[in-house]
Amino acid sequence: MDQAFLNNLFLDHQQAQHQVPGSATCRFVEGVMQLLFPPLSEQRFETVDAVKVYAESLRIEFISILTSMEKLLPASPIDIAENLIERLPNLHRLLLQDAEAMLQGDPAAQSIEEVIRTYPGFKAVAVYRMANALYRLRVPLLPRILSEYAHARTGIDIHPGATIGTQFCIDHGTGIVIGETTHIGNCVKVYQGVTLGAISVDKAMANIKRHPTIEDHVVIYAGATILGGNTVVGAYSIIGGNVWLTESVPRYSRVYHRPQIKVSRTEDPADVLNFSI
Amino acid sequence: MDQAFLNNLFLDHQQAQHQVPGSATCRFVEGVMQLLFPPLSEQRFETVDAVKVYAESLRIEFISILTSMEKLLPASPIDIAENLIERLPNLHRLLLQDAEAMLQGDPAAQSIEEVIRTYPGFKAVAVYRMANALYRLRVPLLPRILSEYAHARTGIDIHPGATIGTQFCIDHGTGIVIGETTHIGNCVKVYQGVTLGAISVDKAMANIKRHPTIEDHVVIYAGATILGGNTVVGAYSIIGGNVWLTESVPRYSRVYHRPQIKVSRTEDPADVLNFSI
Amino acid sequence: MDQAFLNNLFLDHQQAQHQVPGSATCRFVEGVMQLLFPPLSEQRFETVDAVKVYAESLRIEFISILTSMEKLLPASPIDIAENLIERLPNLHRLLLQDAEAMLQGDPAAQSIEEVIRTYPGFKAVAVYRMANALYRLRVPLLPRILSEYAHARTGIDIHPGATIGTQFCIDHGTGIVIGETTHIGNCVKVYQGVTLGAISVDKAMANIKRHPTIEDHVVIYAGATILGGNTVVGAYSIIGGNVWLTESVPRYSRVYHRPQIKVSRTEDPADVLNFSI
Amino acid sequence: MDQAFLNNLFLDHQQAQHQVPGSATCRFVEGVMQLLFPPLSEQRFETVDAVKVYAESLRIEFISILTSMEKLLPASPIDIAENLIERLPNLHRLLLQDAEAMLQGDPAAQSIEEVIRTYPGFKAVAVYRMANALYRLRVPLLPRILSEYAHARTGIDIHPGATIGTQFCIDHGTGIVIGETTHIGNCVKVYQGVTLGAISVDKAMANIKRHPTIEDHVVIYAGATILGGNTVVGAYSIIGGNVWLTESVPRYSRVYHRPQIKVSRTEDPADVLNFSI
Amino acid sequence: MDQAFLNNLFLDHQQAQHQVPGSATCRFVEGVMQLLFPPLSEQRFETVDAVKVYAESLRIEFISILTSMEKLLPASPIDIAENLIERLPNLHRLLLQDAEAMLQGDPAAQSIEEVIRTYPGFKAVAVYRMANALYRLRVPLLPRILSEYAHARTGIDIHPGATIGTQFCIDHGTGIVIGETTHIGNCVKVYQGVTLGAISVDKAMANIKRHPTIEDHVVIYAGATILGGNTVVGAYSIIGGNVWLTESVPRYSRVYHRPQIKVSRTEDPADVLNFSI
Amino acid sequence: MDQAFLNNLFLDHQQAQHQVPGSATCRFVEGVMQLLFPPLSEQRFETVDAVKVYAESLRIEFISILTSMEKLLPASPIDIAENLIERLPNLHRLLLQDAEAMLQGDPAAQSIEEVIRTYPGFKAVAVYRMANALYRLRVPLLPRILSEYAHARTGIDIHPGATIGTQFCIDHGTGIVIGETTHIGNCVKVYQGVTLGAISVDKAMANIKRHPTIEDHVVIYAGATILGGNTVVGAYSIIGGNVWLTESVPRYSRVYHRPQIKVSRTEDPADVLNFSI
Repeated sequence: MDQAFLNNLFLDHQQAQHQVPGSATCRFVEGVMQLLFPPLSEQRFETVDAVKVYAESLRIEFISILTSMEKLLPASPIDIAENLIERLPNLHRLLLQDAEAMLQGDPAAQSIEEVIRTYPGFKAVAVYRMANALYRLRVPLLPRILSEYAHARTGIDIHPGATIGTQFCIDHGTGIVIGETTHIGNCVKVYQGVTLGAISVDKAMANIKRHPTIEDHVVIYAGATILGGNTVVGAYSIIGGNVWLTESVPRYSRVYHRPQIKVSRTEDPADVLNFSI
Repeated sequence: MDQAFLNNLFLDHQQAQHQVPGSATCRFVEGVMQLLFPPLSEQRFETVDAVKVYAESLRIEFISILTSMEKLLPASPIDIAENLIERLPNLHRLLLQDAEAMLQGDPAAQSIEEVIRTYPGFKAVAVYRMANALYRLRVPLLPRILSEYAHARTGIDIHPGATIGTQFCIDHGTGIVIGETTHIGNCVKVYQGVTLGAISVDKAMANIKRHPTIEDHVVIYAGATILGGNTVVGAYSIIGGNVWLTESVPRYSRVYHRPQIKVSRTEDPADVLNFSI
Repeated sequence: MDQAFLNNLFLDHQQAQHQVPGSATCRFVEGVMQLLFPPLSEQRFETVDAVKVYAESLRIEFISILTSMEKLLPASPIDIAENLIERLPNLHRLLLQDAEAMLQGDPAAQSIEEVIRTYPGFKAVAVYRMANALYRLRVPLLPRILSEYAHARTGIDIHPGATIGTQFCIDHGTGIVIGETTHIGNCVKVYQGVTLGAISVDKAMANIKRHPTIEDHVVIYAGATILGGNTVVGAYSIIGGNVWLTESVPRYSRVYHRPQIKVSRTEDPADVLNFSI
Repeated sequence: MDQAFLNNLFLDHQQAQHQVPGSATCRFVEGVMQLLFPPLSEQRFETVDAVKVYAESLRIEFISILTSMEKLLPASPIDIAENLIERLPNLHRLLLQDAEAMLQGDPAAQSIEEVIRTYPGFKAVAVYRMANALYRLRVPLLPRILSEYAHARTGIDIHPGATIGTQFCIDHGTGIVIGETTHIGNCVKVYQGVTLGAISVDKAMANIKRHPTIEDHVVIYAGATILGGNTVVGAYSIIGGNVWLTESVPRYSRVYHRPQIKVSRTEDPADVLNFSI
Repeated sequence: MDQAFLNNLFLDHQQAQHQVPGSATCRFVEGVMQLLFPPLSEQRFETVDAVKVYAESLRIEFISILTSMEKLLPASPIDIAENLIERLPNLHRLLLQDAEAMLQGDPAAQSIEEVIRTYPGFKAVAVYRMANALYRLRVPLLPRILSEYAHARTGIDIHPGATIGTQFCIDHGTGIVIGETTHIGNCVKVYQGVTLGAISVDKAMANIKRHPTIEDHVVIYAGATILGGNTVVGAYSIIGGNVWLTESVPRYSRVYHRPQIKVSRTEDPADVLNFSI
Repeated sequence: MDQAFLNNLFLDHQQAQHQVPGSATCRFVEGVMQLLFPPLSEQRFETVDAVKVYAESLRIEFISILTSMEKLLPASPIDIAENLIERLPNLHRLLLQDAEAMLQGDPAAQSIEEVIRTYPGFKAVAVYRMANALYRLRVPLLPRILSEYAHARTGIDIHPGATIGTQFCIDHGTGIVIGETTHIGNCVKVYQGVTLGAISVDKAMANIKRHPTIEDHVVIYAGATILGGNTVVGAYSIIGGNVWLTESVPRYSRVYHRPQIKVSRTEDPADVLNFSI
């Protein structure tokens, strides 16, 4: 390899900022999940003290992560960790509500344990709620690392900056994208392949609302794409599958599109399959 | 953390049922795949006896998994394992047919080994066929853990309860969802982003057919969404991409929708890109 | 298990070709990425010599991989490795341009480091560019293993044989499929769920162009499906979300479809939700 | 490196016999120990069935090990495994007697659990008794691999061919060597650094008794060296530390040597320490 | 395997006490060593805070270990951990003195880093000083697990109950045994193969002094065996190699034994080697 | 923990020199052993090229190790590595001679493969010969790390600075110490517990010969201690077990000591065992 190229790479490596402990953060979040939700836990706790010590060890682990990137933080590692830890009881309550909504929303689900243990939607929402807490505490990079961690495992990409209400239900999650300035109300249900995105994404728009608002009790079916910061989907609306929506709709709307259906005359299957549609 | 909160978590952990050995089950299924399909195997077998011993060790491993959750089972671990093992030759035959269908269905595929080794569709169907066998044996939780295992690695989510015929071909799998009461015939081909789902998912519908029926020789293109337990797609039909279908279509149907196309007058690209569509 | 079945499995295992070192190849590509992009690096380099030695060790690692599958190669392992290594400075330059395009194209992105470290689009494009180099060198199987490696982690499936220009931007990648004979120009932007695929996939078509051509400065929104080897999307066009396109459109086209919108009269949410759409 | 040298290495590698699965054998023996002695166990067994399945899995694991080296064996893998497994109850009884002897023989020992869990003497004797069983079944190489495994962890080197009676007590084991044709009676106690070896080790002597016979109730203190196939230490004898013994001694002997003691006149410590002794 | 035998094993497993976290304890001690001695450290600390957080994480880790065996402890986990942590500065000082003594005592040693990083004597003494602190705090089992951990890695077996003064130097440690009630003064130097043991080890003697007293500035050469609770080696004495000593010697003694030397008449080496010595 | 103490630890960590890659060096040496001795190899080489590539990868790995500690080296990493690699054919020849000597010297050994695979003596001599090569190339720290690596696994401690002739045979190695300035001729045989050490180890003696000279064809039995830089053991001598020797002996000497033997009158074993010897 060319020496000049190697010299440049070396300079790049010299200038790279301190390593952000991404995988440690993901392990920490997994640890918190195991604390809050026994079906996910790999350990047994014989006493309350054992639970307490485990919680304490998570706190220290998190302070250790934050300390390694201290220069990038808006507050002291101890304060940030304290703040996050204090939110855990509330987070626990919210996530149980989400799991309950997913259980109620999917006839195939048989128990809350099954939802907590196997639903990608639950995992993605849980990681989002942790990442969102860090995002609000203005911790850099870690929220995005967490959302990408969840995305790689579930196919669900919720930006940590999004605002999501209670009882959020994702059924079969692959391919969901929820953008940074999205607002989602309570009791919303979203199916696979849904995009809540921006239109005409210009860098100058970084600080304004670019993603839609979804009011309470909305259901959005598979493959629907809803775009734009001024787009509001009114409460109790139903957005049909594969709909492309870039304007607001009032409460109780039902939005869908109808396909054209044509029955072929020929009965030779090979011919039909090769017909140029 | 609040002591009352810790006490509650402790109680939750006390009440959690015996740990279901999810990751051991996934390893077991990987082991079976390596036995059945040499391109996936990490070991070399010098003699037939070595193959036999390996098969036997898989059997014991599976009995061990089942024993650890014995109280949840409808039959003895040994009987369930026996039953599953007896199905392996048939499973092997079915999966080779699936692989062959994927090879024939994708001009980019160069060999059956390539399909077995690198196609997410093959992996997802293989895990589905194992999970479905366990689902029929009424083993709880493990089938769902397996389907989520495959989903996390392939983006393809086939409920273990679905019924799928022979020569099932998935080309490029990300984002496929196939619901619990779906019926799929033989020689069906499904592209990425397809949803075979339910409408109006009410918990009371848990025991009735909520997902569509796809008859033999149907092709469903990318992004199509087909919903509802009464929806039947007749044999030899072709469902175009991004179609939203909630009603039955007869044999030999072709279903698609046409976009509106509009050519802009301006030739300034920046302007076009920022135009509010 | 039946002895005859075991005998057959043994014969299959005997006939399986030499193991292709798939996971070693993936580790190698990760190593190259860590060399080229410091935010991904797990090591610190104290001197230029350390960078050089690391690059050299990657070269040897790759030769070692190729040597283990020497019989399948069109040229000597050393020549192929040399060829790939020589392309790295160019690859580095191309990928920095891609990362820059993603930074400019996403208002939510805050720095080039964030893109390199957390964007699935960047990861998928980087692996594609490596896999494409191997594909052109006619190395078998490894390119496909790499593309599936990236697909499993990002949900983005770019066939190593595709041709993609500079400044390629993928924002939120899950569910993107780009076929083997696709041609993509410069400065193209693609959103999640987009398929650039073939129609009527007949095995006889393996050697002809089956996938579309996308000219410079095109934007393709979420869920669009564009199919066919003769389909050309003219430069500066915008393809709206969820569009299904199987014919060419001229430069500066805007293609989209409008949903039907209907506002329900009733205000009882339970009723609306259960309405059969 | 010289090509001729590489060619020679390649030929060496070609001619090397099938890999003997050494580390798998050591894991198997650890597994048996965990089955027999709960303080060593890393798993909890909820039911008798779970114990049974675990035992069965060990049996299969061992058959798998033997199958991989089948050509070197004097009997079928299944027969050898059966034979070994049948001996486990007896082995268990013998090892509990050994542990009890170590507990009684060491005032510092506080419980049988402590002996089983932390005494290198117990570990070495346990592995020896397994290795000896394999040695008697004429399994090649594995017995020696096991004895070296124990040696590397405890500093105690007991040849698998040695014959050792019941209630064998090793207190502080480092540096003990017990040769292939040694006979040790019941209730013998051996301290660290003891050698029971051969004199004049001529290759022609491979098939005759080269190591000593130690009768019942003998105690051998630290650092004693007892050599020769005709050397018999009579029952109830005590061999003092650092003794060098190459001839037989009758029952009730006490063998020791006395040091010369000299008190220095000078009180300058530096001078004394540098004095040439 | 016999069902009755399996039943018995199951009962044994049921009755086994809670698992003592042996390996976690060893990791904890390694962590403390890395904190106190940078040449052993696998991490870099960028700030004092990072050191503090690491120390804090070790404290929590240790509390977690103690909590899992809380029922066996004489005090609360937090108190015991506090007590141990408070001793670390003193432990650090003592171990630096030990390392310095080893550096001064071995002409082959080139730096204090070399001693800390590579001398088994240093490792054994460091683990002993930690284990001894736990022994004095009356924590059960863990001290013995630690001493066996050090023994397995160094061949040096120091009972956690022994009392050892400052500047203790072990040069080449394999095969050293130091018993539970040994007293060792300051500036003592011990070579390989030395035993400081008990005679006539009767279980009734568990609570009396059974091992020797070694006063200040004594040197004990390789292979010496010194036994008995009433045996006192006076200050500034030198014990020659391979000496067997069971009685006290005054200050400034030199104790050794002389070999018999005999020169053979024959010059045929084969003959000499086979001569029966 | 006290803040001042933490501050001091932080300063210590700041001042610690660059981490010497100890474990990488040990892995490298294991890799070389696997290359040279097929019974130790974990890989199969299908072609000569595969051997060559593996050798080349070891060379690069070693250069990488040396580069990370470049500032401490007396020559360039590439030159040192080149030098070491060139010595491998000779090293291979020497070690085969050592293995052959061990096979001939131990009637219990059944094949050269058994010696190479399971004899601690072979492992220790092999690592010594590598460490000695690095010692002569004046590479700091690594030689000592290697000798401690071998010591921890075998109980044999050979200083990398020792000089050892051909056909060196160690039978049962635990507890052997061979000092830095020892000279050992050809065809020497050493049993367990032997010390070749220094007397009166004064730091001022660091640069003079402190350890004995052992001429050709000498046999040293278990537990013998031979000390002093002026001590020469003449060729063809036999040193009996447990001998303490601090002066020279001529060729063909036989050195040993005789124990005192006393037969007890009493036949009560309990009485005898408790007798104060």
